[in-house]
Amino acid sequence: MKRKMILDCDTGHDDAIALMVAARHPDIELLGVTVVAGNQTLPKTLKNTLNVCDHLGLDVPVYGGMSLPLVREQYVADDVHGESGLDGPVFGECHKKAEPLHAVEYLINTLMNSDGDITLVPVGPLSNIAMAMRLEPKIIGKIQEIVLMGGAIGLGNATPAAEFNIYADPEAAHIVFSSGVPITMMGLDLTNTALADMKVIERMEAIGNKAGKLFGDIMRFTFRSQAVNGLEAGPVHDVTAVTYLVAPEMYKTQDMFVEVDTNRYGPGYGRTLCDANDRFHKKPNVTVGLAIDHEPFWDLVENVLRRHI
Amino acid sequence: MKRKMILDCDTGHDDAIALMVAARHPDIELLGVTVVAGNQTLPKTLKNTLNVCDHLGLDVPVYGGMSLPLVREQYVADDVHGESGLDGPVFGECHKKAEPLHAVEYLINTLMNSDGDITLVPVGPLSNIAMAMRLEPKIIGKIQEIVLMGGAIGLGNATPAAEFNIYADPEAAHIVFSSGVPITMMGLDLTNTALADMKVIERMEAIGNKAGKLFGDIMRFTFRSQAVNGLEAGPVHDVTAVTYLVAPEMYKTQDMFVEVDTNRYGPGYGRTLCDANDRFHKKPNVTVGLAIDHEPFWDLVENVLRRHI
Amino acid sequence: MKRKMILDCDTGHDDAIALMVAARHPDIELLGVTVVAGNQTLPKTLKNTLNVCDHLGLDVPVYGGMSLPLVREQYVADDVHGESGLDGPVFGECHKKAEPLHAVEYLINTLMNSDGDITLVPVGPLSNIAMAMRLEPKIIGKIQEIVLMGGAIGLGNATPAAEFNIYADPEAAHIVFSSGVPITMMGLDLTNTALADMKVIERMEAIGNKAGKLFGDIMRFTFRSQAVNGLEAGPVHDVTAVTYLVAPEMYKTQDMFVEVDTNRYGPGYGRTLCDANDRFHKKPNVTVGLAIDHEPFWDLVENVLRRHI
Amino acid sequence: MKRKMILDCDTGHDDAIALMVAARHPDIELLGVTVVAGNQTLPKTLKNTLNVCDHLGLDVPVYGGMSLPLVREQYVADDVHGESGLDGPVFGECHKKAEPLHAVEYLINTLMNSDGDITLVPVGPLSNIAMAMRLEPKIIGKIQEIVLMGGAIGLGNATPAAEFNIYADPEAAHIVFSSGVPITMMGLDLTNTALADMKVIERMEAIGNKAGKLFGDIMRFTFRSQAVNGLEAGPVHDVTAVTYLVAPEMYKTQDMFVEVDTNRYGPGYGRTLCDANDRFHKKPNVTVGLAIDHEPFWDLVENVLRRHI
Repeated sequence: MKRKMILDCDTGHDDAIALMVAARHPDIELLGVTVVAGNQTLPKTLKNTLNVCDHLGLDVPVYGGMSLPLVREQYVADDVHGESGLDGPVFGECHKKAEPLHAVEYLINTLMNSDGDITLVPVGPLSNIAMAMRLEPKIIGKIQEIVLMGGAIGLGNATPAAEFNIYADPEAAHIVFSSGVPITMMGLDLTNTALADMKVIERMEAIGNKAGKLFGDIMRFTFRSQAVNGLEAGPVHDVTAVTYLVAPEMYKTQDMFVEVDTNRYGPGYGRTLCDANDRFHKKPNVTVGLAIDHEPFWDLVENVLRRHI
Repeated sequence: MKRKMILDCDTGHDDAIALMVAARHPDIELLGVTVVAGNQTLPKTLKNTLNVCDHLGLDVPVYGGMSLPLVREQYVADDVHGESGLDGPVFGECHKKAEPLHAVEYLINTLMNSDGDITLVPVGPLSNIAMAMRLEPKIIGKIQEIVLMGGAIGLGNATPAAEFNIYADPEAAHIVFSSGVPITMMGLDLTNTALADMKVIERMEAIGNKAGKLFGDIMRFTFRSQAVNGLEAGPVHDVTAVTYLVAPEMYKTQDMFVEVDTNRYGPGYGRTLCDANDRFHKKPNVTVGLAIDHEPFWDLVENVLRRHI
Repeated sequence: MKRKMILDCDTGHDDAIALMVAARHPDIELLGVTVVAGNQTLPKTLKNTLNVCDHLGLDVPVYGGMSLPLVREQYVADDVHGESGLDGPVFGECHKKAEPLHAVEYLINTLMNSDGDITLVPVGPLSNIAMAMRLEPKIIGKIQEIVLMGGAIGLGNATPAAEFNIYADPEAAHIVFSSGVPITMMGLDLTNTALADMKVIERMEAIGNKAGKLFGDIMRFTFRSQAVNGLEAGPVHDVTAVTYLVAPEMYKTQDMFVEVDTNRYGPGYGRTLCDANDRFHKKPNVTVGLAIDHEPFWDLVENVLRRHI
Repeated sequence: MKRKMILDCDTGHDDAIALMVAARHPDIELLGVTVVAGNQTLPKTLKNTLNVCDHLGLDVPVYGGMSLPLVREQYVADDVHGESGLDGPVFGECHKKAEPLHAVEYLINTLMNSDGDITLVPVGPLSNIAMAMRLEPKIIGKIQEIVLMGGAIGLGNATPAAEFNIYADPEAAHIVFSSGVPITMMGLDLTNTALADMKVIERMEAIGNKAGKLFGDIMRFTFRSQAVNGLEAGPVHDVTAVTYLVAPEMYKTQDMFVEVDTNRYGPGYGRTLCDANDRFHKKPNVTVGLAIDHEPFWDLVENVLRRHI
């Protein structure tokens, strides 16, 4: 049976690859894509999402969502993702249109009409998910689980304290993390090791289709803009959340209590405080990804890309 | 020309009287009533609102809204308003129903379809207004002004720092106060002086209609539960926001910069920091009510109650 | 029996008058004067203190103390007290010298050698007192009481939240307010009403001695720099703390729980949160001055000034 | 030329070993030992320090210091170090006495009379150092450098955010870290790898003298109480700070900007926010230890222990 999922993204480089994997993996039924401001403003992340769908002929419905975080002023990652939010690839004229419904309403309607068998995979700021939870708290009981990219046990990348997705909307993250929904978090500790180096890039390009070419165009940019620790390689953060749904055996995880620092005025704003050593003896609310098995991960990605045009 | 307004309330004793005034004042066109959790949980504040409408034959549409604050855990005022949120009056079976639309959607739709001539009068926590502003930021340019009951220059009543409506959703208040919409704030400094004593109560009851009787039932309860400074009288906080729309000449006000303390962890959470002495030299964003002329105020209230059944 | 007291000040205009009253009131035994940075940096507040003593022939020992607040960066009130910290009066060459001992050590030694019969009267930031309490916690049981000028129930004067003395060292204030020592606080609510207008100034000058002349020179400056609410008068804040020791019957006070907001990053930093309405049902730790009887107050001040040269 | 140093400790298991190394290393001139509350209350940490000196015949002067943190309420680590603060070893009657001078005064006097050639090695909460810096700011220019044990780039051990020494006095840490003195920080990232396993313990015991025996008694307790990650070994945190003075070549370090979270009310209180990836582009203020070369480290420890009785 396929895993039903909704991808919530702020496309973005690694978001685009996550979308490619979600849209064509044989064990995933991608119900819809909801878009949020994050790596760039909403008009840009929405356009990027539609571009990727159009380019690869993906007929999944796309919904524009929150253009602002719940409380804080907007914070985007133009230093990482460029002016368009997806600098690097060049797309032709886009014929794909966003659905008229707001992403938050789509989430509420879809979840309320479901049998509780839908997984949310947010790979951007959690504004859409949190707003839906507050606008209709009953969806909380309808979400099968949330597998998200965001946060960190160790250092952040937006500030020393905070990872970008959480820092861009800490209050939304607080709502989601304290909601009671089962949460799996792929944080920087893991995602910064999911690195596409030149060998990976050439391998995907060698597939010879549009998806492989797009992977290359994306990662050759990321390679330069987001090199981790001086390595000649770029991380595909968001992809790890999607692949966890269908191949959890590739992951080493630990259940722990995680709290989001929502002190808007302090230097820790947006940090995911992970009680990995169980200092507080609180009930774990998050399954945190610690490590990923790289070989089967890249095999999986390649196999899905081969299913594309 | 009538002032078009939407009342946003968490009925509540003084909310009920504010509703009576808004519904029948000849210079007000009450477009709708949106309800929010606050004095009590949403099912109770919604029921109280419908009861008042039903009891007095008000045909204004009523919309249920946010059952939770944006970020914080819920905080209600059952110590002040009792188990039902409107303890005191006894209502018969209620035939009035809430509209099926969510209050936040109603606010967005109505404002977006308006000519920018609608005033919002929120007299509870600002959850509905803030959610609408975040879900559709374009409404901000469509709101004529916001006249609200909440906050304080001096001491709060929920904590030493914070007034109840703001304390119940400080993040929502932050969004509204920093939105750029012209705001008039009736805080405790003013509303705690709008006191109905036994003379006022008997005067309204002497009108001899259902509205006068309801006023009496409400204030005889408030009288006991919310006596200010040991006076034999109860405040009608929310009424001052509605009457400001049609009789601003009764008010002494001062424009100033007001900021909401949104430090969730600290003792100042929910305080409206009012720079009345202009220490910060920031552009005023709020017109703050300082004093009210009591005689014309009670005349106005009586005159409106006389227009009821 | 005389009240033994140590004046802890950051001279300053009203500090100078407080010192004049403390030094010559017949019922006060002024053991020493400890000086702290506040209205200006320590070298300036120390010099001002010595100048006043020298000018009026006061032989009380003066001790220099903390040049910095406990934790925060320094914040001085040069906008109110001018470049010297005591702009206005002109002093001749000063022959008086500060004692070699640090004020904090003097406080510890004097209190530890006392019979618990010494009252501290701090009228500046509480850095000296707090440091002494931390360096030698045993002094806490030796302090008879603390009567201080600082804080506010209502608005602050350094920020909308905070009064200057507390804002200049909130962590020190937290230590003192939570120490368990009986505390009486003369805050802005009271001290802003202790206003010397031109009539008061001329009355003191009419005494015809150096002290009366100094009072006039000081208040004619304050008159201009610190006018409250546009009144033609200047407050003598610090004097109210000293006179409370010998004429408490002039004061209306209320016991309440007071907490200092020590969130360094937030807009409420340095606020004295006064639970005047007992919302928290906590044990009162502070006697807060609410009002002062002005006629006997100015009589007292005049009578003391007459005892000077 | 010997390195002049003052050891500031809250003895404590690893503190005791740090003291043994500092007292007998041929390249170190241990001027004095200042003691602070931390692992346990001051009377206990002082007694433990004197016991170790007495037991091993160390004639270094010992000064008792701060019994409380600067601002926060006291927090001790009795869960780790036991009721005495140094559970495990058994000492005979102690003849060694603490000097009558307060540690803070000793620090000020010694530094002010020095040629700026003294290094401070604090291995407990930074209360003594910070108090000295505030009581006499001139010492800041007199400290050659500070090499401390405390903080973490990654997870804390007192809370998920904070390492114990910093958490026990975050305001003191803020003062020290922002003082401008050159600081080297041995945090948990490094010190949790300086593990004495049974092989190390037996090696030190095999020396056959009292110091080797004491090392064994201490670490056999730590072994059980403070096992890291389930390993059969105990960390000797504080020792790494002392040995850095004489063998910096054993360490891998990185200069970075480090800030202490001093939000008393939030979940990040006491965290050392380490900008290892230079997100803020601020001038580095701390040299942070990343790794230690274990073999020469244990050789060094063994060689020093052999110089003891």
